[in-house]
Amino acid sequence: MSTLGFIEYEKAGPEVRAVYDDIMATRKTDKVTNFWKALAHDPARLKRTWEETKEIMAAGALDPMVKELIYVAVSVTNQCDYCIASHLVSARKKGMSDAIFKEMMAVIGLANENNRLVAGYQVEIDDAFKAQG
Amino acid sequence: MSTLGFIEYEKAGPEVRAVYDDIMATRKTDKVTNFWKALAHDPARLKRTWEETKEIMAAGALDPMVKELIYVAVSVTNQCDYCIASHLVSARKKGMSDAIFKEMMAVIGLANENNRLVAGYQVEIDDAFKAQG
Amino acid sequence: MSTLGFIEYEKAGPEVRAVYDDIMATRKTDKVTNFWKALAHDPARLKRTWEETKEIMAAGALDPMVKELIYVAVSVTNQCDYCIASHLVSARKKGMSDAIFKEMMAVIGLANENNRLVAGYQVEIDDAFKAQG
Amino acid sequence: MSTLGFIEYEKAGPEVRAVYDDIMATRKTDKVTNFWKALAHDPARLKRTWEETKEIMAAGALDPMVKELIYVAVSVTNQCDYCIASHLVSARKKGMSDAIFKEMMAVIGLANENNRLVAGYQVEIDDAFKAQG
Amino acid sequence: MSTLGFIEYEKAGPEVRAVYDDIMATRKTDKVTNFWKALAHDPARLKRTWEETKEIMAAGALDPMVKELIYVAVSVTNQCDYCIASHLVSARKKGMSDAIFKEMMAVIGLANENNRLVAGYQVEIDDAFKAQG
Amino acid sequence: MSTLGFIEYEKAGPEVRAVYDDIMATRKTDKVTNFWKALAHDPARLKRTWEETKEIMAAGALDPMVKELIYVAVSVTNQCDYCIASHLVSARKKGMSDAIFKEMMAVIGLANENNRLVAGYQVEIDDAFKAQG
Repeated sequence: MSTLGFIEYEKAGPEVRAVYDDIMATRKTDKVTNFWKALAHDPARLKRTWEETKEIMAAGALDPMVKELIYVAVSVTNQCDYCIASHLVSARKKGMSDAIFKEMMAVIGLANENNRLVAGYQVEIDDAFKAQG
Repeated sequence: MSTLGFIEYEKAGPEVRAVYDDIMATRKTDKVTNFWKALAHDPARLKRTWEETKEIMAAGALDPMVKELIYVAVSVTNQCDYCIASHLVSARKKGMSDAIFKEMMAVIGLANENNRLVAGYQVEIDDAFKAQG
Repeated sequence: MSTLGFIEYEKAGPEVRAVYDDIMATRKTDKVTNFWKALAHDPARLKRTWEETKEIMAAGALDPMVKELIYVAVSVTNQCDYCIASHLVSARKKGMSDAIFKEMMAVIGLANENNRLVAGYQVEIDDAFKAQG
Repeated sequence: MSTLGFIEYEKAGPEVRAVYDDIMATRKTDKVTNFWKALAHDPARLKRTWEETKEIMAAGALDPMVKELIYVAVSVTNQCDYCIASHLVSARKKGMSDAIFKEMMAVIGLANENNRLVAGYQVEIDDAFKAQG
Repeated sequence: MSTLGFIEYEKAGPEVRAVYDDIMATRKTDKVTNFWKALAHDPARLKRTWEETKEIMAAGALDPMVKELIYVAVSVTNQCDYCIASHLVSARKKGMSDAIFKEMMAVIGLANENNRLVAGYQVEIDDAFKAQG
Repeated sequence: MSTLGFIEYEKAGPEVRAVYDDIMATRKTDKVTNFWKALAHDPARLKRTWEETKEIMAAGALDPMVKELIYVAVSVTNQCDYCIASHLVSARKKGMSDAIFKEMMAVIGLANENNRLVAGYQVEIDDAFKAQG
């Protein structure tokens, strides 16, 4: 289910099929997941979002697994169940062990706690931390 | 400034001083930052929070720099200015380059965008993503 | 299901029935939705919330459909599944086409992304943007 | 101030200058605002973000002013001070009157309130609201 | 400063003055705070918001100080600096001691941490916790 | 279901069993709930989280029921369904009546609304509210 429904490969136009093909090739799978099938009602946006995702999540100065952890940290903080579920699977494929998962969760929990302690204690920013740029 | 004010080393009792000493020794600095000086009104909590922070942020299955990135990702998503400022400084000390910062920010931005696309398109979780445990 | 259960029309007291009647008359329907039936345990609050909702969501300087889009934008950002589902239906009734839905979602995604880029890049507010009032 | 500092036009390379030129031409102004000058350390991302923003915020099925209102609704919900300040100015330029601002704020307040009532009262989604797609 | 500026008592119309008078009488003070002076551009909404606030925050089944603590807990979680600052002052006036402040902050921190652990560990709701109503 | 699955008492090691025993003794129940069984994959963290929870939620300057209300206020604001469901049950056990629940929900709704009014109206903090410490 999804607001506008899913567009399956068979029913997709050429612009959408091209994106689906690239998703499957890039991810070495024969399945397109629901997120993309829901977005496909807006082919230009599907293409943009896929290209951005592919580019941003690729290896660079950061390892792809670390990027997935950062993605999960955001999704957990936003309580996005779909995103947590799907990116934990991606993180696993890119090397996340149980030990890494547990350490990541500890950091996420701690940061969420400390963020609020700072807010309630109304802690002024130390001069040493102020952006200098 | 802070809700209850800051407790400086000179005015601190022995329980608080012990934590301050450990913070300065661990971080190889002669300064205690505002967050700890604000929390010091609750010495038991100061101790707990510091010990948890020290333990959780230490090297383990994950590199300390990666832990800082995860911490920043949470803080950015929660819009905690103090936490962003202070943990970007920590991340730098632990090896975050400008290139890493920029890639991390791209992932944080993307995840926040996609989290909301999923919500508005009301995308059902794929069976393949469901927690099996 | 709901924390206190739902109060159906047949079991409702006169104060609640009056609100239900007004909801059905205003919305030209013979059904009261779950939100109102859950709130009805607090008849004074039900009345207040309904009156506020009716007044705020009515045509004014802004078109009722645009008000629904703003409501959805908030609900998506807060990840409130019920509110997304129900107000997308309301928005449709007030004229939201698929094209409008898709454009709205693109704006919501972009704003969520840029909000975080601003936070992480710690961008100072331009003088030209500061509230002058 | 900003994490990496601002890149002014005079110091910018050709890729960044091309974006700055397009921003100024599109917005009919001779100033580039801080957000773009902070992002300019990542020229490829600057370009992508600007192009997305230009495309998404342009007139389409939705009026540009309405798009600004949706953008503000997200930014208010996320408490992004920079984004609120800058997009309220943009909204004004595109036609937001005081009356529209006040009505928008009423909707934003109401949605944030009702989102939480739904959560705490644990209201189950009505069948009529479930995504049919 | 504020988006539309502040409306001072001297410049206010009779509808706004009536609200200001009631605020000052209820709070036993001769000052109206900025929140109300910013909202006063929308006199009907000012009146509604003040009446709701007065009614909801008054003594009932819950003590007014406890209501302030709940208000602060929400404001801290939303990172609303104004609301944290102003409602901590209100909470103090209604009896919040330093000890209560510190215990409240510990609960707020813990809940924010555990909320995220639940999300990342994707914990299914126990049957015993499901709303029965 | 849960990311790593649940660890049942029978399969748990001695460190985890000791925590489970303490949970059941403290809560006078013969069941351990899913949250703890999901966390048990990280026995050190399970122990820490349980000890913190037990200590922070115990009677002190604040009544345990009030602490549960604060916990619920955070969880509602964060839209954590599990936490809302489980801590409403805990709050009930510690004395939350229907009347208290309804008043708490009214405060939570109001604070979420006013937090956003403050943000959008860009209300500057009154000098009287600024942290003096």
